[in-house]
Amino acid sequence: MADAPEVGELTPPDRTLMGPGPSDVHPRVLQAMSTPLVGHLDPSFIEIMNEVQELLRYTFRTDNQWTIPVSGTGSASMEAAIGNVVEPGDTMLVPTNGYFGGRMESMARRAGGEVVHVEAPWGEPLDPVDVQKAFDEHQPDVFGFIHAETSTGVLQPNVSELTSIAHDHDAYVIADCVTSLGGVEMQVDEWGVDVAYSGPQKCLSCPPGASPLTLNDRTMDKVLSREEEPRSWYLDLSLLEGYWGDDRSYHHTAPITNVYAIREALRLVAEEGIENRWERHLNVAGELKSGLQEMGLEMNAPDEYWLPSLNAVRVPDGVDDGAVISYLLDTYDLEIASGLGDLAGDIWRIGCMGYSARPKNVQYVLSSIEEALAEQGYEQ
Amino acid sequence: MADAPEVGELTPPDRTLMGPGPSDVHPRVLQAMSTPLVGHLDPSFIEIMNEVQELLRYTFRTDNQWTIPVSGTGSASMEAAIGNVVEPGDTMLVPTNGYFGGRMESMARRAGGEVVHVEAPWGEPLDPVDVQKAFDEHQPDVFGFIHAETSTGVLQPNVSELTSIAHDHDAYVIADCVTSLGGVEMQVDEWGVDVAYSGPQKCLSCPPGASPLTLNDRTMDKVLSREEEPRSWYLDLSLLEGYWGDDRSYHHTAPITNVYAIREALRLVAEEGIENRWERHLNVAGELKSGLQEMGLEMNAPDEYWLPSLNAVRVPDGVDDGAVISYLLDTYDLEIASGLGDLAGDIWRIGCMGYSARPKNVQYVLSSIEEALAEQGYEQ
Repeated sequence: MADAPEVGELTPPDRTLMGPGPSDVHPRVLQAMSTPLVGHLDPSFIEIMNEVQELLRYTFRTDNQWTIPVSGTGSASMEAAIGNVVEPGDTMLVPTNGYFGGRMESMARRAGGEVVHVEAPWGEPLDPVDVQKAFDEHQPDVFGFIHAETSTGVLQPNVSELTSIAHDHDAYVIADCVTSLGGVEMQVDEWGVDVAYSGPQKCLSCPPGASPLTLNDRTMDKVLSREEEPRSWYLDLSLLEGYWGDDRSYHHTAPITNVYAIREALRLVAEEGIENRWERHLNVAGELKSGLQEMGLEMNAPDEYWLPSLNAVRVPDGVDDGAVISYLLDTYDLEIASGLGDLAGDIWRIGCMGYSARPKNVQYVLSSIEEALAEQGYEQ
Repeated sequence: MADAPEVGELTPPDRTLMGPGPSDVHPRVLQAMSTPLVGHLDPSFIEIMNEVQELLRYTFRTDNQWTIPVSGTGSASMEAAIGNVVEPGDTMLVPTNGYFGGRMESMARRAGGEVVHVEAPWGEPLDPVDVQKAFDEHQPDVFGFIHAETSTGVLQPNVSELTSIAHDHDAYVIADCVTSLGGVEMQVDEWGVDVAYSGPQKCLSCPPGASPLTLNDRTMDKVLSREEEPRSWYLDLSLLEGYWGDDRSYHHTAPITNVYAIREALRLVAEEGIENRWERHLNVAGELKSGLQEMGLEMNAPDEYWLPSLNAVRVPDGVDDGAVISYLLDTYDLEIASGLGDLAGDIWRIGCMGYSARPKNVQYVLSSIEEALAEQGYEQ
């Protein structure tokens, strides 16, 4: 057995985070995380839970009673959504137009569901016509789509159209809002989204660890009347209902500090105003986009479905995407990311989220990228 | 839709946490949590991950390569253990002597396993004779036991005997060390434990959110050769292997701040020395136990299996357990807890864990309880 390891003080580098998440965390949120703990059943924590739920409803634009932070990172709220709503024997319709549709598929299968697809190439949104066809052909019980596809930088337009199609077929709609919540317009109630989930480390600029989830009553009725219990105890919403519902009884120990953090991050959303926040992301990311285009770079997504929070930029011919990423990290402590899956090597992904969505950061990214490209011998 | 909610600054009360967890967090750990983030794939974070793994191995007393913090609270590491090791059709042997055996049972069933029991009353440890009988009768594939039962304040002695029985039957042993790791002796390798998991908010005095898990190679071979994939994507160890193993490739966004926190909490373990830490818990909790007994109170567990980190004390006749708990919280900002399940109303649970296991806290608890009991008209 080894002796006690000698591990030094925590001194991570001082990065500027302009990748696909995490984004830079607001100092007030960092400060909230150093707050001493109360117990997860403390009367004062119950009040904090109520406040977080209220702030989450505001941010999701919903009146759903069932709105909570799930005790895990974004993939945990994703699995809580899919693993509770999809019952063995249910059919779930998932998209093929990016990385996260594939994750939906894996989760739905593990939940005991059958999976069918609505096709679109990576880098394109879903076409309502194709969704309609897929519904007519497969009659799925659940339909999942990605509102803001982090792997391709594509925003799904026409959300109300998609939910209408689903509801005409008595299906439930699950929206992945990981990279949109708090940065890009998402209207859960008005647009007829039954279930939405997100991660805190994107447009909310909060460290990962407690992740937003909302379900309307119609969907909770399905969840609470399941014949077979969900396959995860940790993420079983019928059990979590005991803790986050009226009883406030013990299920598991909530990640108290992460709840403190998301409370502060959501307070910042409320102070700014959700519409103002969407507008800020549009404006600041718009400057980023213009700046990149002025350098002769090409956005991967056309303007109609450009995603302000995640800017996918084509890597110019002759430029090594990884060399630019390393140069930015090594020279400027600046994080941007490469493409994933079908788009690996073809794009860079530059986030513009939450506290990172500031003119200061955009200026820094643009001048650093210009220099990195020059190092690579790129001429526009 | 509601307007922006007006939620004030975060000002939780200043509690002293002497319940079943969370325990008081060390100031250095709180400070680590306010450190700005790096990305979860940043080269500097990879190094931090390595350090955390090394520190976890030291704390678990293991050389297991497969030693990680799971991205969730203690129940997530518990479900990661059970949900990966138990395959559909496997039989798992679980104990009936406390609350957490019941949780093991629920998780094993959801994983597709059959469950059989080894019986012992709440408040008693398992008898190796009964474990042997249960193995002979049921031939289980997996055996789970609770090393430190938080619901009853009972420490399971004879761990090596239990693991020997299991290994004679070619079974895998999963040990729940939620309330023992870092506070009460646990020797994963020497005692033949195949899988152990814990929570950070007990004897490690770290906020919940990233939870220790270790598996030996023999068990990982079973996990990696499963015919059917585990039912959780989020907790699938074959996928997590890509992130925590040699590849360091993306699976999900790790809870970076919680990893910072557990790193600092584990550094404190290494600085103190694990054996010294066990001894401190024994000594400080010993003072607590003596003090309670001097007041005429009776411990629920006899000395042979008294659990220093969680002291279960009988509520004297005529005393209202809830009134005492409320009095301590309201008057002294001091948290202790009531009994759970079979022992609800019969015991108080007083934690003595990590940074809370200090003479100062013991003195404070003893004098406060003495006063609370006097308020209740208790005379020893």
